[in-house]
Order: sequence, then structure tokens, then C-alpha cells
Amino acid sequence: MITMMAKIGKIIFFSFLLSVFLGCQVTKAEDGYRLWLRYDKIENATLLKEYRSEINGIIIQQDSPTIEAAKSEIVKGLKGLLDTSMPVRSSISGEHSSIIVGTPKGSELIASLNLDKKLADINDEGFLIEERKINGNNHIVIAANSDIGVLYGVFNFLRQLQTNKDIRGISIKSEPKIKHRILDHWDNLDRTVERGYAGLSLWQWSKLPEYKAPRYTDYARANASIGINGAVLNNVNADPRILTKQFIKKAAALADVFRPYGIKVYFSANFYAPMRIGGLKTADPLNPKVREWWKQKVDQIYKYIPNFGGFLVKANSEGQPGPADYNRTHAQGANVMAEALKPHGGIVMWRAFVYNAGGEDRAKEAYDEFVPLDGKFDDNVILQVKNGPIDFQPREPFHPLFGALKKTNTMMELQVTQEYFGFSNHLTYLGPLYQEVLDSDTYAKGKGSTVAKVIEGKVYDYNQTGIAGVANTGNDRNWTNHPFAQANWFVFGRMAWNPTLSSENIADDWIRMTFTNNEKFIKPVKAMMMKSREAGVKYREPLGLAHLCIQGQHYGPAPWTVDMPRRDWTAVYYHRADSVGIGFDRTKTGSNAVEQYHEPVQSEFRNLKSTPDKLLLWFHHVPWDYKMNSGRTLWQQLVHEYYEGVDMVRNMQKTWNSVEGLIDQERYQHVKSLLKIQEHDAVWWRNACVLYFQTFSKRPIPDQYEKPSHTLEYYKKLEHTKYYEHN
Amino acid sequence: MITMMAKIGKIIFFSFLLSVFLGCQVTKAEDGYRLWLRYDKIENATLLKEYRSEINGIIIQQDSPTIEAAKSEIVKGLKGLLDTSMPVRSSISGEHSSIIVGTPKGSELIASLNLDKKLADINDEGFLIEERKINGNNHIVIAANSDIGVLYGVFNFLRQLQTNKDIRGISIKSEPKIKHRILDHWDNLDRTVERGYAGLSLWQWSKLPEYKAPRYTDYARANASIGINGAVLNNVNADPRILTKQFIKKAAALADVFRPYGIKVYFSANFYAPMRIGGLKTADPLNPKVREWWKQKVDQIYKYIPNFGGFLVKANSEGQPGPADYNRTHAQGANVMAEALKPHGGIVMWRAFVYNAGGEDRAKEAYDEFVPLDGKFDDNVILQVKNGPIDFQPREPFHPLFGALKKTNTMMELQVTQEYFGFSNHLTYLGPLYQEVLDSDTYAKGKGSTVAKVIEGKVYDYNQTGIAGVANTGNDRNWTNHPFAQANWFVFGRMAWNPTLSSENIADDWIRMTFTNNEKFIKPVKAMMMKSREAGVKYREPLGLAHLCIQGQHYGPAPWTVDMPRRDWTAVYYHRADSVGIGFDRTKTGSNAVEQYHEPVQSEFRNLKSTPDKLLLWFHHVPWDYKMNSGRTLWQQLVHEYYEGVDMVRNMQKTWNSVEGLIDQERYQHVKSLLKIQEHDAVWWRNACVLYFQTFSKRPIPDQYEKPSHTLEYYKKLEHTKYYEHN
Repeated sequence: MITMMAKIGKIIFFSFLLSVFLGCQVTKAEDGYRLWLRYDKIENATLLKEYRSEINGIIIQQDSPTIEAAKSEIVKGLKGLLDTSMPVRSSISGEHSSIIVGTPKGSELIASLNLDKKLADINDEGFLIEERKINGNNHIVIAANSDIGVLYGVFNFLRQLQTNKDIRGISIKSEPKIKHRILDHWDNLDRTVERGYAGLSLWQWSKLPEYKAPRYTDYARANASIGINGAVLNNVNADPRILTKQFIKKAAALADVFRPYGIKVYFSANFYAPMRIGGLKTADPLNPKVREWWKQKVDQIYKYIPNFGGFLVKANSEGQPGPADYNRTHAQGANVMAEALKPHGGIVMWRAFVYNAGGEDRAKEAYDEFVPLDGKFDDNVILQVKNGPIDFQPREPFHPLFGALKKTNTMMELQVTQEYFGFSNHLTYLGPLYQEVLDSDTYAKGKGSTVAKVIEGKVYDYNQTGIAGVANTGNDRNWTNHPFAQANWFVFGRMAWNPTLSSENIADDWIRMTFTNNEKFIKPVKAMMMKSREAGVKYREPLGLAHLCIQGQHYGPAPWTVDMPRRDWTAVYYHRADSVGIGFDRTKTGSNAVEQYHEPVQSEFRNLKSTPDKLLLWFHHVPWDYKMNSGRTLWQQLVHEYYEGVDMVRNMQKTWNSVEGLIDQERYQHVKSLLKIQEHDAVWWRNACVLYFQTFSKRPIPDQYEKPSHTLEYYKKLEHTKYYEHN
Repeated sequence: MITMMAKIGKIIFFSFLLSVFLGCQVTKAEDGYRLWLRYDKIENATLLKEYRSEINGIIIQQDSPTIEAAKSEIVKGLKGLLDTSMPVRSSISGEHSSIIVGTPKGSELIASLNLDKKLADINDEGFLIEERKINGNNHIVIAANSDIGVLYGVFNFLRQLQTNKDIRGISIKSEPKIKHRILDHWDNLDRTVERGYAGLSLWQWSKLPEYKAPRYTDYARANASIGINGAVLNNVNADPRILTKQFIKKAAALADVFRPYGIKVYFSANFYAPMRIGGLKTADPLNPKVREWWKQKVDQIYKYIPNFGGFLVKANSEGQPGPADYNRTHAQGANVMAEALKPHGGIVMWRAFVYNAGGEDRAKEAYDEFVPLDGKFDDNVILQVKNGPIDFQPREPFHPLFGALKKTNTMMELQVTQEYFGFSNHLTYLGPLYQEVLDSDTYAKGKGSTVAKVIEGKVYDYNQTGIAGVANTGNDRNWTNHPFAQANWFVFGRMAWNPTLSSENIADDWIRMTFTNNEKFIKPVKAMMMKSREAGVKYREPLGLAHLCIQGQHYGPAPWTVDMPRRDWTAVYYHRADSVGIGFDRTKTGSNAVEQYHEPVQSEFRNLKSTPDKLLLWFHHVPWDYKMNSGRTLWQQLVHEYYEGVDMVRNMQKTWNSVEGLIDQERYQHVKSLLKIQEHDAVWWRNACVLYFQTFSKRPIPDQYEKPSHTLEYYKKLEHTKYYEHN
């Protein structure tokens, strides 16, 4: 009889060790929290050796909160990247090759290096990174005119290592071309975020000012690393309570955390604040009591936030109050705040996003409203103009106000959050969109008057320059939910610093810093990113179409939308499809919006033949059988674009599948899952739009394309049953 | 002449290494994400040595998703705690002392250990942990009747190590005393959370079912580790869309993640779903089409979620639809769903939280409504009764429905989220509250008929038993925002498993697992936790007062609230202060609610002298000069309680200050900041209430107390200007 014990003894001995990996998961998770500031050990052994031989220490001879931040960052960065604790010294020691960090004012060593001329050539936020021989040894000098320049230089230098650049003979000179580089947070005081798709607001108002979450510092680090120097803390649809003492004190706690990182805080101000929280009976900007109220309020803010940046204002726009309520102009409205801010060095960013119900063409209205006011704004006001004349659509022509205002500081507003680009579900790298508008030539002062040059203040001599991005951050662990949405924050900051940078090069940096320096990963993924925005255009609104989305929500397709309180909130207002053709005639036979552009842009857009395909239906109502450059009819081309958009997403999936194993599983799987959603949604957009437009064109979907899997009625119903969270 | 170079050379050589700590911050941050499942290396060297000698491997002879989870957990746990990779073998190997894990059905080794008798003594979810000598070597056996029992046993065993228990001769037998141990998530489909104070819902609906966030697994692990076996995914104020196919598929993805951890998913069902999403013209539970609709719907759910738990229903309560809309009873409403669920083994949890506008005493209404229905509910319905007769107030007597329903399964609903306890700003350990109600004796069948025994089904023979806690989780990194709010999740789970456990012992476990085994920390912090709920009662609503909070928001004080759409939403309805005295007369001269309790409880509460001080004003309207047991008059006692509440918070601050350095700075500073807010709010509550009640008592605040720093008018105004986010 075999006893149980003996039987057990006979069981074949088999043991296995579970990977050590299991035990490390919690602490080493690639959860995306570190963004592009990942300082993991350099994988290339040759390069690591080289870097280690070139960097043996850090020399810092000065101190300030910003220098402290720079020191902490470079120590942390080098500790991670080179896997060695780097000594921080106050002088050159022996034969070591050091990183010498500082300003001539704060560091005798820096002052001794004869950098005066070079430093005189860059502005207060710029920096130099140079290799210098001192006493026979090579050192790397990170020098600037100010402490914040030093911090920017440190982040730039760390980026060189993160992206595996050769640092031998390094020589970098960099300065921001735009003064105010700002993230606009559309964050409400209850922490919901308008058009935010990555969780709640980062600002834990109910715990401020007492509790300063460590995340605030990491937010500031991330921004400083890409040169962002301002944050509007609250939604442009502004709750007046942000201006109460209670909230000023809370915001002051944030400002204290951000200050060493060169980031100023701004408030979105509600124009009715003097009534809503001030107890006045009017908010008329010409009323002396109102003027005095704003003065007192601003003085109070500066008492708590000495480096307060100023106000962002959405006035007389989409239901927000404004000066027009008192028959005053936007200039009169802006100036009452500007006057209060002026003594403190603060600015007003006044949004040009205004359009009245019943206007003949919404695209024309901001221009018509603000051009007559050119020269009427105080010099610490900047008009904040969206990249295009409508509203952050997947593609718009550049806004005609760029190049139209000779005497009014003009800044640009971009959207980093993907309101019309699939929220945080879709992979859409916005760099090419930013680059497209910045590179657009306004011809305001002849060829070369690009939008970038306008907002740099080089076409007209603006004394304040700025660029703002509507933030895509939230309290989700990885800040933006879609791992690739981090790239939009990154590219916005980099282009705000230098609008002439290539979005492709920035994508390259971002991939290396965020994922890996492995070329097998970089090449296909960069190509995928560079095409992703175009894919998003094609499966939604190709050939210059716009605003076909479900109203309110803005996620899915509803080109049939016709019943809304305002005509210019419907889809049919924009696409104007009929039995003849499709598109919005903005030439002389239509709204003549083209006349708002300078020549030769105006003629290019006026002329059907010279209008680029990608903007065709923005400017023209085109017959269905119109022959396109491709040889296809317009209808065929429209169908082709929609199908191509879906194909591009499927190719993105293939690309992503091909890189499995080259990065961590956590982020790999996350992106893979989201691409599945994106493919589904792209098909939804394509089928809904093609079937709907077919009801006008009465032409078939050519045989080579897969047939829509559902009827138009199905998609119309889907608009109402499909549900997506708004945050 | 001294050259600059020489000068530099003369600078005293001074270098310093920044702590290695800096470089580790990112990965080793004590951000609270791990909850109590921290498996850091045992700090006590002697104990570590002992544990290591007693555990050399793991033996598992079976496989299933749940066993896989158990294996993964014990490997991960031991890897962290003992800092050694533990081999997992399928048989005993040589001289090793192993952990032998499994069920007799799945493991020949377990089956050979003659545990049948002991295992027959515990239910399907229970487990044994025993030291056993096999072939001359000591082994630790974790055995159960089912795989989930094994997982529970593994978590229990790891807890022994985490809390530094002596495991020599270990012998544990444990089984849950309640069948359904459920977290109720009041999460909306847009991810906002009603009464949630830790960010958005954990469920990323817009990315489900495609993306299964790793956090879902950690949620399941945390729940399983404390024995929770169910999760109602959505708010009781239920969006009918949860029952659409789209959401069922999303929920199914969550169910798949949770299943190995023994957690069933439930839906809150909207009673009008047959109309709202089903296209029917009625939701009358007696209508055959409605019955059929529920049947079809339930069948569809089980197709996607084979282990679906059932429905939670809030009907005819605070505006929610219900059977009364068709003149049907709650029993008729519940049974139509129960009938559909029955074939699949699902249950209906029907909330007893109903009260009509205009009733004489809200505290009486649920009893009056449901006692006449006793016996009318199907046997897979459980009536879900809140701990007290009003609504999760800081202190209430136990609900008179406990012990009143002989033929109706009755479960308890507790609040884990701190709706009336300072949200996630205040430190309030709710263990003593849970214990107080569970230990309360209903005398339903004579002495010893405690509430715990009622819900265990031991007083009356319920065939379904349950306990639910309204969750306090959100997508904040540390799950609950206040680090100490994690303890409420923990204690709820532990008491759901065994309602007779001591809340103090559970606090001890939690502190050890979450922070440290250092007695210098444990002793004062445990004492602080144990007093914290009483502190929260005293500075808000001492002596049995209730519902003095600002309406809607429920955070700050507003005892003056008188103008509301319903009388029973005002504060004055509850406190009834007048020139004579204060308190709600629930004796014969008043609403006579006391008669809903069994004797001798009824007499105890009816009699002013025998009513405990802590419930005095709940049951009696008491004159201001009434002499209390303390020798103080009622007014003096009331004032005393409020001041004592503030003093207790200040003592909590002192305690916390005294433990600085014994734990990580990140959590230390977080708690310290929040205690500052709590102290401020406690003073706010105290001053507002004392000043307000003084307008009735017309008696002075005795000299020994600090004078309120503001007037009553100030605090009344504060109600409207003070702002707290709702999520």
C-alpha cells in the first residue's frame, strides 16, 4: 500500500522561481508619472562610459530657490542617468571635469570665463552651454544672465544626455523668442475640468493653502523643463470666487511652489466680479467705483502673490459678461484691469474669441470686432487669438487677426487638450498642427511675415509677446491619460520657447526621453506620430470641413445637427451640403471672409484652383463632380479621405503591434487598448459622415471600399445613446 | 595682483554629497498607493531571521485564476517582507520549511493532512492556517474549502508577518460571518462621485472595455485582503444607462478583473429603466411586459457577467422613482427584479432609506413603511438598512428596523466615505462608530440580540446576510486622499468579515501595515485614532444632536437652517432649540419614536434619566438648566462638549507633532497639513453652534473657555462664502 506520504514523495520534484520582477512592480512601475523627465540609467554602455568620464562633479557657487531647484534637478538627473552620486562642490577640485552652473553675478567662476559678450546676446531667460578648458581640464559650463536661465540650461543639458547626444565640444545658445509661455487651465473651482480628459484638476482647492501636494512641484518641474513660465489656474468661464481672499491665499500657496521654477500664476477673471463678489451695483468699466474696485483687488492679490502674472478674460463670449453689457468696447473693458495691473507689472490677456448669434459668418467676427479697436488697448494688454478663426478644429486656416493688428499686442491660443481630437482616447500628436499655423505666412509685411514672427513681435513691434496652450493635464497618474498626449504638452512648451523648431525633431526628443533611445522603436513611432494629426483630420473633417461633431460633447460625429439654439452651433451651418455640392463659400459670392487676409493669401484662398485641397471646403462650396487634382471627383475624394483616415489608424495599430517588447508592457498595453478604441471611433466617424453626405451627393461609395456596417439611422441614434464621460 | 584663476584656487575646498535619497524619491515615494499592502522588508532583524528560517519555499499543487492570484500575492509579499525570492514548488523538497497552500480538492498534499474535520467546520470562504510537522519538518499550511478561501488565507498570513506576529505554532481558523460584504460606489457614469472626496471614480468608463487599467487589479487585491466580496459599481441615484449593453460590456471587463479575487459586481438599478432605456410605457412591477423586460435584461447581463451579483435599488426616496408611483409596495417592486435574478443566483438589495415630506418624525418612517411588509419579500431580496434611523450622522442610535423584521433578510449599510465627517480633510477613524452600532443590543429575542447578530442572521434565520459600506475611494493616488481615511476602508472590510472584532485591534493592524511596527508610533497614533470619531461628534453634534450641517454640501455648520423645500431638511427640525431647551422629543409627549425599539431599550430611551448623555437630545427636549450627571447644567455641558471637541483635535495635532521622524515625511506632512485644516474647521463648528444656541439659552459661555473670535453673523455669512469642492 502506497501511503499518501510516500506518494507525495514520488511526485516529481519541480520548482521554479518567479521572476524577481514581481517584487519590483510596485516601485518600478512605468506608470507615466515621470513624463519625459525619466532619468533612468543610460543603456548604451559606451555612451555611459563617455558621459561618466566627462562629468565628475557639479560646481555651484551661489544660492537661491531657483538655483536650489537647478541643483536638485541636476543631482537627481545625473544620479539616475549616470547611476553615480555626483558631488556638488563650490570650486574646481583637482583634475575633475565638472558641470559649472551659474550666473556671472552669483558665481565668480562663471564671471571669470569671459562670457559677457555671449551673455549680452541672449535675454534674461536664455542660457549658454559650452565646453571650456580651465586649468587644462575640460568642463561644461551652464551659464545664464539670471537664475531661471540657469535652470532652463540645466534641463536642456539633461535632455542632451537623455536623448543620447554627443556632448563633446557642446555649444548651445538658447533663449525664448516669446515672453509669456502659458498653460491655460480650464479648471473649475470644484475641480472638474472643462474639456479636460485626464481626471480632476491638479489643484486641490479644499486642501490649500495648508496642504501643498508634492505633485505641484513635479508640475512645475515639467513645465520649467520645456520653458513654460505661466499658468492660468482657472477656467476662462470664470467663477468670480477665484478673486476672493480665500482663493487668493490658496493660489498664493501654489505660486510659492511654482516661483523657483519661473512660473507665474494668472487668474481668469469674471467681468462681473465687482458685482458678484465686490458688492457693487455695476461692473461698468468706466464707473470710478469699478475702477477703484479692480485697483484694490489687484493690490490685494499682489500682497499675497508678489509675482502675480495678471488676468485672462473671456468677455461677451458664449454667455460670459463683458463691457458690451454697458455699451463699452473690449478695449475699455480690458484697460480697466490693465490700469490696475500696470504698476505691478501684470498683464491682461483678452480673448478675441467672440461671435454673435446671427452673424453671416462666424469666421469673420473676431476680425470685424477687433481690427477697429487696434491701438485702443493699453500696452500691458495682449489680445489672445486662437490659431484659427473658428474654434480649435482639426484643421483651420490661420486666424486673419494674425498680421492685422499693428498696434495691439497679439498672442496665440492653442489647444493642447484634445477637445475635437478624440479626448484622451485618441493618439494625436499636435506638433504638426502647431507648426502648420506658426509657419503660415500672413504676408502682413510681405513674404516671410509668418504667424510665428507676428507673435514673436517681429512683424509689428509688440512690447508684450505670448502664446498660450489650453492644458491637457489632470490628476490621472500619468497626467494626460493617453500616454501620447504627454507629447502635446511637451511640444507646446518647446514651440512656445522657439516657434521655428521642427515638430518632428521635438517628437524625436520626446520619444527618447519618454520611452527609449532604441532606433527600432523611435523610427516607426515617430512616423506614426507625425501622421497622426492628419489621420485625425481625415476620418473626421477632411478637405477643410469643420464642426461636424456631436454638439456639447464634441467626441463623436453628428454632421446632421441642425436644431440648435444658434445656427452657428449646428453642423449644417458649416458644411452646407446640398444637392449641388458641399462647403462654405467664403469668397465674394459668399461671406467674403477671404478679404480678411492679406494678398497674396487672399487670392490664393479666393481662387478655387489655388486653394489647397486641405482647406478647399473651408473656403468654397464645391460641386460633387468637381475634378480634384487627384483626378477624382470631389465626392470620390471625400470618400477616399474618410477611408484613408481609417486606414491610417489601422496602420498605427500595425506600427504599434510591431514595437511590442521594445518598451515596458504597462504603457505598451495602455496605448494598444486605446488604439483599439480609436480604430472603432474612426470607423464610426467615417461611416456616419459618408452615409450622411451621400444623402446629398446621391452618388455611390465606390466598390473598392468596405461597406458601412450600419445604416445612417443607426449612427444618428448612436449620437444619443453613445455615452462618453466629460472628464 | 591676484588673478581670478588664482583666487578661485584659493577658495576653500568644500564638497558635499547630496543624499542618495534624492535619486530614489521617484520610485520609493510613500505616496500611499500601496495602502496596507506594503510589503517592505521586516525591520526587526531578529524577527526577520526567524521568519526566514521558518519559510523557505511555497508549495502549490493546483491552478486556477484565484490560486494564481494567491500565488502571485504570496510570492510578492514574501519577496518584499523577507527580501528573498521564494521558490514555488509543487512538492515538499528536502529539509525545507514551506508554506503549503491549497484546497483538499486541488492538492493531494493538503488532502493528506487530515484537515477534513476542521475544514467541515468552516464555510466556503473560510480558511485555516496551521503549523504541521511533515516528515520531521515544520511547515505552515494555508488550507481552505475553496480557492477564494485560500486567497483569504494568504492575505491573512501575510498580515501576520506585516504586523510582526510570532508565527511559531501558528493556528488560525477564520470564516466570514456575513455572506455579502460589499462596497457601494456612489459613482456616476461621468466619473463624478456623489459624496466622494478622493477624486474621480476609479472606473474609466470611456476606456472600458478595451483598457483595463492596472489599478483595477490593485483595487481587487485591496478588497480581497480584507474580505470584501462585492462592489456596486454605480451610484444609488442610478443612471439607467448602466443597464445598456454598452455599459454591461464595460462592467464585464471589470468583473473579469475582479473575479479571481472573489469580488462580484452589482449594479444600482433605476426603477424606471424599462421606460428610460427599454422603450416601455410603464415601469409598473405588476405589468407583464415590465416583468418580461427585467427577465430579459437580467439574462443579458448574465451572458456577459456570469457571476453577476445583482441589483441595489433606491426607490421612492429623495426623488428616485419606485413602485409607489404605481401604487405598488416596496415588496412588489423588489420582487419583480428578484424574480428575474433568482434563476441566476442574484440578489436584490432594496434600500430602506425612505422618508416622506411632511411626516411627523423622519426617524420613524422606514420602520413604519417596512414592518408591515415583513414576509412579503422574495427570499433573494435583502433590505438594506442604514446603521441609524436618519442618515449617517456622526452619532445615531441603532436603526429600529434591526430586530424588527423576522421574515425579511436585513443587511446593514454603513458609510465609509466621510459625508458628515469632514470629507477627506478630517481625521476620523470610523471603527468605533461601526463597533458601537454592531454591539448595540436590540433585545429582539432577549439580551444578546445585538445588531451584529441580527445581520449575521442569528437572531432571525435570514437566508441571505449582508453588510455594505459606501466607498471612500477615488482616483487620487492614495485612493482616499486623507491617509487615515484608508483605515476606514480597512476597518469596514475587517468588521464585515467579523462584526465582533475590536476596532482598536483593527487599528493596530492597520497602523502596523500602513506605517510602521514601531511602538513609539503605534501607541499614541492608535489612541488618537480611537478618540477621533468622538472628537468629530463633540465639535459638531454632541449629546445626540444631528444634522446641523450646511445643507447640500454637508461640510460646515449651519444650525440656523430653517428655509428648505422640506422641513426635514432643515437643522431646526432636528435640534428644536427654543427658550426652554433643546432636543427632539421622541417620547410619548413627542413623536414616540422610542416605541419602535424593543424593551428594555425602549424604556431606556424613553426615560430621561436612563438615556445615555451621548443620545440625550436625540430622544428628549431638555431644559437648558437640566442638571447633567457631570453636575453641569445642560447648557454648560453643551458648551463643554463643543470646547472639548476642539481640544481633542488640538491634542491630535500634538500627538502627530510628537511622532515626526518615525515615518516618512511625505505622509507625515500630508497628515499634519490636514490636521491644521481640521483644527480650523472644528473651531468654526464650535463657535457657530455655541453662538447660535446661545441665542436660545440666553446664558453665558463660562469664563474658562476662549471667546469665539467672530460673531454669529460672521459664521452665518461664512455658510455662503465658504467654498468646498464637492469632489
